[in-house]
Amino acid sequence: MLERVELDVRVTEPRGESGRQRRLARAARADDGDPRSELHRATCTLSRVSTGSWPSDPGATLAALAGDEQLGDRIRFVVELDRLKQVLRRTVVTDSTRRENTAEHSWHVAMMALVLADTADEPVEPMRVARLLLVHDIVEIDAGDTFVYDSGGQETKAARERAAAERLFGLLPDDQGDELRACWVEFEDGTTAEARFARALDRLQPMLLNHASAGQAWREHGITADQVRAVNAAIEDGSPALWKLAQRLIDDAVARGWLPETGR
Amino acid sequence: MLERVELDVRVTEPRGESGRQRRLARAARADDGDPRSELHRATCTLSRVSTGSWPSDPGATLAALAGDEQLGDRIRFVVELDRLKQVLRRTVVTDSTRRENTAEHSWHVAMMALVLADTADEPVEPMRVARLLLVHDIVEIDAGDTFVYDSGGQETKAARERAAAERLFGLLPDDQGDELRACWVEFEDGTTAEARFARALDRLQPMLLNHASAGQAWREHGITADQVRAVNAAIEDGSPALWKLAQRLIDDAVARGWLPETGR
Repeated sequence: MLERVELDVRVTEPRGESGRQRRLARAARADDGDPRSELHRATCTLSRVSTGSWPSDPGATLAALAGDEQLGDRIRFVVELDRLKQVLRRTVVTDSTRRENTAEHSWHVAMMALVLADTADEPVEPMRVARLLLVHDIVEIDAGDTFVYDSGGQETKAARERAAAERLFGLLPDDQGDELRACWVEFEDGTTAEARFARALDRLQPMLLNHASAGQAWREHGITADQVRAVNAAIEDGSPALWKLAQRLIDDAVARGWLPETGR
Repeated sequence: MLERVELDVRVTEPRGESGRQRRLARAARADDGDPRSELHRATCTLSRVSTGSWPSDPGATLAALAGDEQLGDRIRFVVELDRLKQVLRRTVVTDSTRRENTAEHSWHVAMMALVLADTADEPVEPMRVARLLLVHDIVEIDAGDTFVYDSGGQETKAARERAAAERLFGLLPDDQGDELRACWVEFEDGTTAEARFARALDRLQPMLLNHASAGQAWREHGITADQVRAVNAAIEDGSPALWKLAQRLIDDAVARGWLPETGR
């Protein structure tokens, strides 16, 4: 991890900024848990440029212990999945002590599928929705999390995530890799009722956390209510009932002073 | 969170230990990410004695915005789930930088259900296994994580978790609460093929992380190979194939010096 990060720092930082380089190197070693600090923000940025190479490969060692190639490939994939716990999102958890990571986010939205399925626009099979949500962000292991309000990042997101899907699902035996890749494609394309509802939950969840943390991620990134409405209007495609809730949540955040109506 | 923790400190610490009290108060504010430090261990201990009261209740505010009691109750439950991200386990994530939390663990084992289902002893429905695993640790929001090698904690675990299930699943409308409680009971009792396989995955996952981190949690807690074999032999009930892998993993960890064969 350290090796990889130091390489990124050399590439992205101009010469002479040694103070900032030192901070970034420290960020690679530890996160002080304060989502507003430089240390924290640096870790997040670096996680977005990870390329998937991993100097010491515990997954390969464990795969060899399986004594069977098919099982070994799957164990290797399982160990690789652990890295999603290191991908940080912009949202903070509800007690505001730290940023949320993508693995715990994936669990949270899968649970939302189980308890909110009957609010979907069309009838959906809850566990099919949950399966899409368990799988939908695995590509972030290589591609990193792309902030929904980062228009530059959104432009390059599709290509980065396609390459990630190729490598990550490619670790599995063909039939299993194809099955999980199909889940990811279904979620991305939103072609089924389950995928549209899964996408709605994926949008609503950070709004709940933002409201619960008094708008922390919105305020840190200077987001306005107009932007929140525009980016999240797709919730209506999956669940008009949840979009009604989301609109009330936005209005309430504006009224409480956590979210300005428009930019300054 | 701070209020709750300070109360616990007053109850559990004798007077005069002001140095330790200060450390515990600091632990309530931040986790320094080092699993061996006092700060870290204190946070973990405190999370086990939480009683479920939550001074500022963002879930109630969000539930009120739903404008519908049934939907409001479910939103409140969803916000409450976020707290599982604060429950720390003894295991460290594979790059050894920090302890794993129970929410990300739940995602990891649910994904294992999807890719390892055909190693189960009897045919299982992968998404039924995943559902059990998504739900099985929700009780830890109130009851905390109980280390599998902590025999004292194991004695009181059932009662603590029953009370937690009562409160947490009780937040939901009756039918939904009953359904999730039934998942938790099925997992705990291991009465179905899906539950036995889910329990096997729940045991194998920390073994994979322990091996990937050169036995860090084992070494920190002075665990021996005999203990690891005894506690995890139940993997065989769910999957003889994965138990074979687990035994090879233990032998390999012993050979590498990460796990002593017996106690000193």
